[in-house]
Amino acid sequence: MDYQNVLIAGRWRDPKDPAGHFRAVNPANKQVLPQVYPVCGPDDVHEAIAAGKQAAIELRKAPRERFARFLDLFADKIEAHTDELVEIANLETGLPKEPRLRNGELPRTTDQMRKAARAARELSWCHATIDTSANIRSMMGPLDGPVSVFGPNNFPFAFNSIAGGDFVAAIAAGNPAIAKANTGHPGTTLAFARLAFEAVTETGLPPATVQMIYRTPAELGLQLVSHPEIGASAFTGSKSAGLRLKAAADQAGKPVYLEMSSVNPIFILPGALEERSDDIAAELFGSCALGAGQFCTNPGLMVLQKGERTERFIGTLAEAFAGNRPGVLLSPKAPDGILEAVEILKAAGAALVVGGQIVEDDGYRFANTLMRVDGKTFIGHPEALQTEAFGTASLIVVADDIGQMKEVASVLEGNLTGCVYSHTQGQDDREYAILEPELRPKVGRLLNDKAPTGVAVVPSMNHGGPYPATGHPGFTAVGLPASMLRFAALYCYDNVRPPRLPVELQDKNPTGSMWRLVDGKWTQKNL
Amino acid sequence: MDYQNVLIAGRWRDPKDPAGHFRAVNPANKQVLPQVYPVCGPDDVHEAIAAGKQAAIELRKAPRERFARFLDLFADKIEAHTDELVEIANLETGLPKEPRLRNGELPRTTDQMRKAARAARELSWCHATIDTSANIRSMMGPLDGPVSVFGPNNFPFAFNSIAGGDFVAAIAAGNPAIAKANTGHPGTTLAFARLAFEAVTETGLPPATVQMIYRTPAELGLQLVSHPEIGASAFTGSKSAGLRLKAAADQAGKPVYLEMSSVNPIFILPGALEERSDDIAAELFGSCALGAGQFCTNPGLMVLQKGERTERFIGTLAEAFAGNRPGVLLSPKAPDGILEAVEILKAAGAALVVGGQIVEDDGYRFANTLMRVDGKTFIGHPEALQTEAFGTASLIVVADDIGQMKEVASVLEGNLTGCVYSHTQGQDDREYAILEPELRPKVGRLLNDKAPTGVAVVPSMNHGGPYPATGHPGFTAVGLPASMLRFAALYCYDNVRPPRLPVELQDKNPTGSMWRLVDGKWTQKNL
Repeated sequence: MDYQNVLIAGRWRDPKDPAGHFRAVNPANKQVLPQVYPVCGPDDVHEAIAAGKQAAIELRKAPRERFARFLDLFADKIEAHTDELVEIANLETGLPKEPRLRNGELPRTTDQMRKAARAARELSWCHATIDTSANIRSMMGPLDGPVSVFGPNNFPFAFNSIAGGDFVAAIAAGNPAIAKANTGHPGTTLAFARLAFEAVTETGLPPATVQMIYRTPAELGLQLVSHPEIGASAFTGSKSAGLRLKAAADQAGKPVYLEMSSVNPIFILPGALEERSDDIAAELFGSCALGAGQFCTNPGLMVLQKGERTERFIGTLAEAFAGNRPGVLLSPKAPDGILEAVEILKAAGAALVVGGQIVEDDGYRFANTLMRVDGKTFIGHPEALQTEAFGTASLIVVADDIGQMKEVASVLEGNLTGCVYSHTQGQDDREYAILEPELRPKVGRLLNDKAPTGVAVVPSMNHGGPYPATGHPGFTAVGLPASMLRFAALYCYDNVRPPRLPVELQDKNPTGSMWRLVDGKWTQKNL
Repeated sequence: MDYQNVLIAGRWRDPKDPAGHFRAVNPANKQVLPQVYPVCGPDDVHEAIAAGKQAAIELRKAPRERFARFLDLFADKIEAHTDELVEIANLETGLPKEPRLRNGELPRTTDQMRKAARAARELSWCHATIDTSANIRSMMGPLDGPVSVFGPNNFPFAFNSIAGGDFVAAIAAGNPAIAKANTGHPGTTLAFARLAFEAVTETGLPPATVQMIYRTPAELGLQLVSHPEIGASAFTGSKSAGLRLKAAADQAGKPVYLEMSSVNPIFILPGALEERSDDIAAELFGSCALGAGQFCTNPGLMVLQKGERTERFIGTLAEAFAGNRPGVLLSPKAPDGILEAVEILKAAGAALVVGGQIVEDDGYRFANTLMRVDGKTFIGHPEALQTEAFGTASLIVVADDIGQMKEVASVLEGNLTGCVYSHTQGQDDREYAILEPELRPKVGRLLNDKAPTGVAVVPSMNHGGPYPATGHPGFTAVGLPASMLRFAALYCYDNVRPPRLPVELQDKNPTGSMWRLVDGKWTQKNL
């Protein structure tokens, strides 16, 4: 069969032992695309791990500057190939070329790549800590093996397994990466992999610094994340797949960072509704419909207090849901996935307000769907009623009063985000004070008066949250340099002779501006 | 039965549903001590979890200063009760009253407690990160439930589950703690718990901020670390028990920090032997014999290059091992545990140099034991030959050359520490450069020319390491404030109104000296 190549151990080649093959589908017209991609077998996966391990050993000696140059060069190449990347990503995902792919996601991707380059160059990310009287020095440094990256289907650029946030964080922290292309956009990933490998070669990094395979049988994915020579893994995708990978990695004592599921609760307090009901409805509809609702931070749950204003708000929102054409979903399976979630929600007591059915169309679409349930029912069936419907599908919980809103917050699972809309002049402040303590520890990012979609790539960002939103509440997948800490280990040097120390820990500040914690004070000075 | 009390939900009381009972043993004379302690049943454990969860909710509103005051007050009380604590710890562990307990471990315990207080008060530990133009702010904050602490048997003070490093880190980070007393020293733990609870009451913290139970059936321990209302757990002890707790916690998505096993390899390069063989032998014997060899960082593995000097070194070390009376071990089971490990090592090819048997004596003792094996055999059976013998028992690996020493390093499991002795004038530098890249990623703390015992409580310390030394390579159990990060979650505030922000993230620097990362720069200023 005429397979598309994999990139293993510095070679573009045919798969050695394919366990099958697949083709991508254009979800906008349901056409199967011509290229044939291999399902990789054990020989390919194991060769990639061994080559990645070898690269990890070589990379320990590489100056940090080289990682930065690679990332900058890769970003330049991406920009130079914008047309090609936008073309293929559009074909494989149905996401609009403009503004989404060309003007939104691509610049975001190169921006975070350059931010990762800057972090690798500045060195401050590694939290160099020096105690002069004890002569002990420590820092975060690369892992003892490659990082495997499983990218999601919903951001073919910004979370791509060989160009997105996890990949750049792993590389900037000094690790090689093994990218597992998402099955939804193998051609996009291949296009990135070609550019990445060019940049690797031109920067003089070891060839296996970046490797790329496609789908594997499920069992091989588990072997990958639990392999003794793997450093860590990053996965963004469904909870069911994430939990299987987590179980395998955990058992082997391998770090695994997961971003799995989130319904991103929105609490709208009475004063906010009184003040600006229509504005909030418009803002939330926009957020719900972004990317056909297939965003990690999509507002899937809204909690309001019962009353006339709430009924009016639901009516306004329902009009927007019903009156706008649903976007194209990412894959042939997506409509069934939403339908299944909607059925679970209905079975648990949710009532349809609008939508609820697959839209028969040229492309894969599901009607924009709004449901409602009362607070008591939600509190009685919290697990089923937090089922994530990955699309423009939200559940409104109508609570009796602020006490019940608080109770709703108390039964929430861990989420990436949580948001509270309140009156701008303070008339909801009492309610906010009741609600916040329950909501705060359930979410990674707490917002006020702002929809959760739109995840800024800044150091203070937390795109993480308590389980099961992710696997560990202390790490973020977005926001440099913090996201790099996932792919690092703490290395301490006790009485190690000065020339044997890594540059980050020598007396002289290696960049003249790196931040280091010396004797309890952050400083940019030499010792 | 006249049980010693447990401390649950602010009450000193009898167990509700004891699943059995036990007594401590004085290992110095094998006498069973009179006090009877309950094995706690499910009612007690579940009540403690529920009370701890409630305390966690209340503590979110408590000013950080109160945690600092509690820790300072607790340290004062410990000092005021030194005689009593030293007396009971000596009875229960056989550790010498002086200098070990009174002059070493007790001051270390109060010192780290006051360092934790200082960290709680200074606030810099939480890595407050503020991006002004995005108006996003984040920090590490307390978990959504109590921290359960399982202390080890070998440090009745400094790692005690209600007074040691994990406990103070959990409290300083703002969490309530549920201490599970080590079965070896329940009376010591009870004495600390009384003082801790007095300090809680006097500081006005919620009564369930500290709770204490004793042994539980194994199944209940698993329920504790995996309970939905637990924030995280910390365990220091055996690998077998640690891995069972890890499996349960992992499956529930609950963070668990383990310090399990470590043979702490020591590489002695030829020039160092030529230069100062006897000094190194004396230093290492001292390190091996500390606490009867029952230290996490005990040098259990030494790697040398074959030759006359190495034989002489082994001879010197063997004399020290044979010529010094072995210390009292911590428990009735300890001698059998060492014997079992020695048998595994022998079966895998190690030969006894000296020792190897249980010493029949008033107290529990095992002969100081030195074994040897050649490099090829070690590389062929790395798992068995890294079996930890928890006592003064070390294995010497005699390698053919530096290449084989490097191979030995390459098959090492994750360890807390690794050490290289080399010639002071640089004649081992070539060998060091060959060895270091293999050894570095296998250990948390790399030492030069210094025995690994003696773990300084400084910010740069790493008392952690790759699996299976611990469960995660990015965290340390010793060294404040870094050890507090294990018991914290990342909380982000996006567009949250100023008065609703925690003090750590408000424009005004809350202490005037707290370090915050504002727009990419560490500063102590207001915004």
